Amino acid sequence: MKAFYQDFKLGIVGGGQLGRMLLQFCPNFNVHACVLDPSADGPCSGLANEYTQGSLQDYDTVYAFGKQVDLLTIEIENINIDALYQLEREGLPVYPQPRVIEIIQDKRIQKQFYLDNGIPTADFILVDNRADIEAHADFLPAFNKLGKGGYDGGGVQSLTGKADLARAFDDYGLLEKTVDLQSEISVIAARSSRGEIAVFPAVECIFHPEYNLVDYLIAPSSLAAEVLAQAEELAKRLIESLDVVGLLAVEMFVSKDGEVLINEVAPRPHNSGHQTINANDTSQYEQLLRAIFGLPLGSTAINKPSAMVNLLGEEGYTGPAIYEGLDRLLEIDGANIFLYGKKITKPHRKMGHITILGNDMETLKEKVQLVKKAIKVLA
Amino acid sequence: MKAFYQDFKLGIVGGGQLGRMLLQFCPNFNVHACVLDPSADGPCSGLANEYTQGSLQDYDTVYAFGKQVDLLTIEIENINIDALYQLEREGLPVYPQPRVIEIIQDKRIQKQFYLDNGIPTADFILVDNRADIEAHADFLPAFNKLGKGGYDGGGVQSLTGKADLARAFDDYGLLEKTVDLQSEISVIAARSSRGEIAVFPAVECIFHPEYNLVDYLIAPSSLAAEVLAQAEELAKRLIESLDVVGLLAVEMFVSKDGEVLINEVAPRPHNSGHQTINANDTSQYEQLLRAIFGLPLGSTAINKPSAMVNLLGEEGYTGPAIYEGLDRLLEIDGANIFLYGKKITKPHRKMGHITILGNDMETLKEKVQLVKKAIKVLA
Repeated sequence: MKAFYQDFKLGIVGGGQLGRMLLQFCPNFNVHACVLDPSADGPCSGLANEYTQGSLQDYDTVYAFGKQVDLLTIEIENINIDALYQLEREGLPVYPQPRVIEIIQDKRIQKQFYLDNGIPTADFILVDNRADIEAHADFLPAFNKLGKGGYDGGGVQSLTGKADLARAFDDYGLLEKTVDLQSEISVIAARSSRGEIAVFPAVECIFHPEYNLVDYLIAPSSLAAEVLAQAEELAKRLIESLDVVGLLAVEMFVSKDGEVLINEVAPRPHNSGHQTINANDTSQYEQLLRAIFGLPLGSTAINKPSAMVNLLGEEGYTGPAIYEGLDRLLEIDGANIFLYGKKITKPHRKMGHITILGNDMETLKEKVQLVKKAIKVLA
Repeated sequence: MKAFYQDFKLGIVGGGQLGRMLLQFCPNFNVHACVLDPSADGPCSGLANEYTQGSLQDYDTVYAFGKQVDLLTIEIENINIDALYQLEREGLPVYPQPRVIEIIQDKRIQKQFYLDNGIPTADFILVDNRADIEAHADFLPAFNKLGKGGYDGGGVQSLTGKADLARAFDDYGLLEKTVDLQSEISVIAARSSRGEIAVFPAVECIFHPEYNLVDYLIAPSSLAAEVLAQAEELAKRLIESLDVVGLLAVEMFVSKDGEVLINEVAPRPHNSGHQTINANDTSQYEQLLRAIFGLPLGSTAINKPSAMVNLLGEEGYTGPAIYEGLDRLLEIDGANIFLYGKKITKPHRKMGHITILGNDMETLKEKVQLVKKAIKVLA
């Protein structure tokens, strides 16, 4: 096989912000990067060596894209899986493997995988429609999750009791028992094509009370060391059981009695790993490149405590984005902005993020509040 | 003026590795980047939003390039200065300013500027040809520097005594008295279009004994605090006297008796600032963007001690580059590689660099030796 730095083409299916940051790391390895994305002017346009506009759900489009490259990876799961299987059968390395993506694409299959492999996860019941949910009303309070297609907080609803049944999704999905939460954490694991595994230290996710999106996160998590060790071990077991080549972002619930349960996983770079760019020896993006090229994985050590704040489109504004308060933001020591190149803002749209470095947790949390007050995405 | 993130074009004159790393930071600010470079497939090709192939010395080419953009910066000094002046006269912001580039392009004018502004620098004599040098043979030992065009260790020779006179450049230049060196250090200063100044901590440069290029550097420098404070103060004074908007990389000699003397400066990102990407709150590349867009400058604090090793083409090999020992290299904890996308290696050509993070100076210096043994650029 030719070396990855010699006339080698890496294909990335999906051209959102995760692809954009991955592209920022490709030059360090002399990687020629090709991106497939449906939008004409998404976050990766103008930045990839080659950019193809096309549907990620269309078999022919994904297949034709794959035939032009030497290795294929993804930055979104919602893609035509048959095309990936066919490319793999024809000898193209597809990392993460189609088998892994297929399990993760469907939250019902994902949940079943945890059960079958003894991976702790919240209790659940499969449901096919609203009638099914009504028949299991005694299972509430629970989260009702669509089987497929949920993303960025979509496809999930909280059903607290019978009064909520009328607005329940009438769709193929599952009910997941609500956990009495102490905290939500995330661990990003990497596994290389040689089988080497490395795990980033757990980060703590603080969710936005309304939007069901990560509002900010803190790295490392301040939970008890034994809880974090358990979480990191679980991420390791999971990436091994799934036999992933690439990254596996593992979102977990920590219950009030310290139990660690898998919430969901993503086989790609993840929102909860952005801060690794500034704060760790190796970023999640570089780690993905190392993993899929069969290079030694990098040290995941944290060099400085950090926080990551998502920059969401302000409620009530839709149109060409204006970043109000950039000056106030950039005056905050250790704050770095990452804009995603999206021309149009919409309420709650992820327009960028801010990474903050700080010497200790207290300073960091103060800076998070300053950052959130400093900047707004208007139109 | 429109905001820098809205249909705004940044022009970068020069498309080498410094431009390449600058491009890696442009997406964070939604900056649409246009590069002008003479090569068809240089380090920035395929990565810039727009890439124009053309001569940097040709008035019409540089002028036409500038007319297409909203702000112009540079990543190499050796460019047509008349075109930059004309663009500036027509209202284009050119940062650093043509006036600054013109002073720095000619080492004789640069030296005279230091004298006129009371900036300490090694003694020198201007020479127009070899006969002039012979007439000043009693000034040796000295460095003979060409007035214009020297780059990456070229255009500089050491003349230790009369025996060396026969091989002295027969050209417009200067003789600079050899300083009895304790150390060579470098400080990168930034000044924004609003006049704010920030200075990165001084780094120590260890030169390759033969090639007259930085072999590796250590950040921060381990020299006495009062010497470093003097160096950082000097860099600040210099960027103020020159009235630069952008970066000024200031290379300095520290004599055995602790005197700090300016060696040379560059008004752009610099080899001695690469490690800021991994080790500091703000990288030199982000700092340049903040400076020219009139944003608050970032904190220059070092988060972890680091070293930077240049990856030079191995003696005796010319042709398509092969990076032998990448695996051994990437097994070293805290080592990150940055390849420059140059297809052809030549002896001593800068093909990339490696940044190393370490907990203390001793570990770092050990890792530098491991890194240098691990990887070779062959063909």
